[in-house]
Amino acid sequence: MTTDDLVQRQSVRPQAPQFRLISRDDSTAARRAELRTRRGTVQLPAFMPVGTQATVKSLSPQEVQRTGAEIVLANTYHLMLRPGVEIIKESGGLHRFMAWPGPILTDSGGFQVFSLAHRRKVTDQGVEFRSHIDGSSHVLTPERALDLQLGFGSDIIMPLDDVAGYDSDDATQRAAMERTHRWLSRAVLHWRQSVPDTDQRPLLFGIAQGGFDRARRRDSAAFVASEPVDGCAIGGLSVGEPKALMLEMLAESISNLPEDRPRYLMGVGSPEDLWQCVALGVDMFDCVHPTRVARRGALFTLDGRVNVTSARFQRAFGPIDPTCDCETCSTYTAAYLHHLFRARELLGYRLATIHNLRFMQRQMAAIRQSIVDGCFEQSMRSFLERYQTANVELAEQQRRLWAASRSRSGN
Amino acid sequence: MTTDDLVQRQSVRPQAPQFRLISRDDSTAARRAELRTRRGTVQLPAFMPVGTQATVKSLSPQEVQRTGAEIVLANTYHLMLRPGVEIIKESGGLHRFMAWPGPILTDSGGFQVFSLAHRRKVTDQGVEFRSHIDGSSHVLTPERALDLQLGFGSDIIMPLDDVAGYDSDDATQRAAMERTHRWLSRAVLHWRQSVPDTDQRPLLFGIAQGGFDRARRRDSAAFVASEPVDGCAIGGLSVGEPKALMLEMLAESISNLPEDRPRYLMGVGSPEDLWQCVALGVDMFDCVHPTRVARRGALFTLDGRVNVTSARFQRAFGPIDPTCDCETCSTYTAAYLHHLFRARELLGYRLATIHNLRFMQRQMAAIRQSIVDGCFEQSMRSFLERYQTANVELAEQQRRLWAASRSRSGN
Repeated sequence: MTTDDLVQRQSVRPQAPQFRLISRDDSTAARRAELRTRRGTVQLPAFMPVGTQATVKSLSPQEVQRTGAEIVLANTYHLMLRPGVEIIKESGGLHRFMAWPGPILTDSGGFQVFSLAHRRKVTDQGVEFRSHIDGSSHVLTPERALDLQLGFGSDIIMPLDDVAGYDSDDATQRAAMERTHRWLSRAVLHWRQSVPDTDQRPLLFGIAQGGFDRARRRDSAAFVASEPVDGCAIGGLSVGEPKALMLEMLAESISNLPEDRPRYLMGVGSPEDLWQCVALGVDMFDCVHPTRVARRGALFTLDGRVNVTSARFQRAFGPIDPTCDCETCSTYTAAYLHHLFRARELLGYRLATIHNLRFMQRQMAAIRQSIVDGCFEQSMRSFLERYQTANVELAEQQRRLWAASRSRSGN
Repeated sequence: MTTDDLVQRQSVRPQAPQFRLISRDDSTAARRAELRTRRGTVQLPAFMPVGTQATVKSLSPQEVQRTGAEIVLANTYHLMLRPGVEIIKESGGLHRFMAWPGPILTDSGGFQVFSLAHRRKVTDQGVEFRSHIDGSSHVLTPERALDLQLGFGSDIIMPLDDVAGYDSDDATQRAAMERTHRWLSRAVLHWRQSVPDTDQRPLLFGIAQGGFDRARRRDSAAFVASEPVDGCAIGGLSVGEPKALMLEMLAESISNLPEDRPRYLMGVGSPEDLWQCVALGVDMFDCVHPTRVARRGALFTLDGRVNVTSARFQRAFGPIDPTCDCETCSTYTAAYLHHLFRARELLGYRLATIHNLRFMQRQMAAIRQSIVDGCFEQSMRSFLERYQTANVELAEQQRRLWAASRSRSGN
């Protein structure tokens, strides 16, 4: 598919392009861009904090904003089960419900159905499953996943996809990809029919899958690119595979994605992932990692993660990171955080979360600036040389979580 | 003891009086006053939120301030065990440690030793006990309790007292009171010797005990009043006794307390307690009740407590209390709070705590205003007529907690 073809497909959408490429790095595939949504423009590359159940765990929306986040993600699977789309609609939509005025991206529910739900049954029609909360029966189809997100009032919506795990065989991975493609076409059709007025439409992204096969990754990306979507997501990565393989598959996917639409790597990542994946051309990220590890006391610094519960912080009377401008580091000592975690005080989870999300946003700001300044690669090298990664531990943990959820669901 | 006698005793303290009586209610014993501490003046009557472990559970210090609180309480027992006084001292004191710039009152640790600690042994010298956290051995004496609070840098410090439960016999209650008196005299002596410069001294209050005997309540109050303390606390109430008995004992204690010093009712109360006890002449309160019940979803309204987890709030798309100006009610619906509690989201505990503490502070502001305006009794009647109390439940629960802690500690 040539760029001209792509431009032609894009013209199916009559409004002005939402995606604006500002600057391109010379030596890597990094891009500085922006994405216009109906609730504001997002500076790219961007990291989206995860507000699974209509709240970024432990933070108020104002605190999320003050970390520098411009957009948050919420999970359709969780919200459809609790409180349910009707209550969110009656509340005046998800933005009013959770008091977040900026853009919201919602996923389709697919990933959680495959990782959390019980007794799921996938057919071409959709997926039937039981809630992990109360065992109640639910159905997600490509159409229903969109209706839910339209009901939430999300600004960026994702189509239902079929996710194959790192441990699935070749045939399963292929079948999941092909189903994902068929479901995307249905989603596009349903989106157009449901919201005929293009000005009223939220943005719709496609999701490229393809498992862990290079050719399939390219094929799936090409398929997504051929659909008139507003952005291209890369799914099915960071599900327990080695980091090198993840980066390899990501590069394959991106090789067949168009330049003129944003690329969103779903469910990634750690601080080092941000730099490495931007270098490959990613524009958007989301991940529970910074918030989840924060609640266990693991805090990001430029030297790597530190655990504030460890004895060495008992008498650390400076901030966790003296170079950090977050509310936590500006106000509290590491010794106080240590105390809060040891005493299991709720304030500790919040202060740690603020710090980690601010750390992520500071990385994104540094990434954006360095692309414009033409020194992205150098900045990346500086960051990666200093930052001690916890990759191996993280990948192993993700593998275990995934395996546990698969076996729990009888797959 | 006459007022002249009292004035003479007060003159032992050379600095300007810290306590200023602004206005007295005509028909009740309610007083409008202020108390000057070295970290700011507190408007009385005042409610002090409890920051047991150097944090008002789930709130930041700024949030506590925005509820209208001017002073917080912290617990010596908890802080001496974790993080320990040395770490707080090295942090630059409790105010810097917890980032609370206003006045702090600390208790002596006595109450928690009697309600939480294990295997305690009380002698005239002091009390030996084992930590409820790790079983480690500790000693509190009247002198040590003061040293700890001087180490924290508290603005108002409390002497060690011996607390008898509602279920203890007459001889035990008398012995506890007499020991409390001997300990107070030692505390006063130690306080003067430890901080010879009167300008540097935090305020020291005395604690009137006396169990549930009218004469003893009066005797103990008279004893405390005869010591050169900056304020008089009433202890040993709200430990499971019926509310009417509590009010009766309180009135007896106050009958022998001087007018020219603040009166602090320890560990009380619920919203209705505030009005009822101010009517009897109380100036200061502290209680975990508003914050503790908030974390279970129980929220104060002018009609009484409501439980936001109950199904009727699922579709309540207005604030918990339309007349409330707190951050929670200004921003979020009851339906959202309901969702957060059902989903066990950390933000829920915080939003509920903000609301309840703001409710308490609004009551205190209304109490102060109505005293000045000469309509305190009428305002109290309006409040009490409308507010559905949860007294019986609360008293029963306190009784059970107390009984459980007594039996756990082998007393």
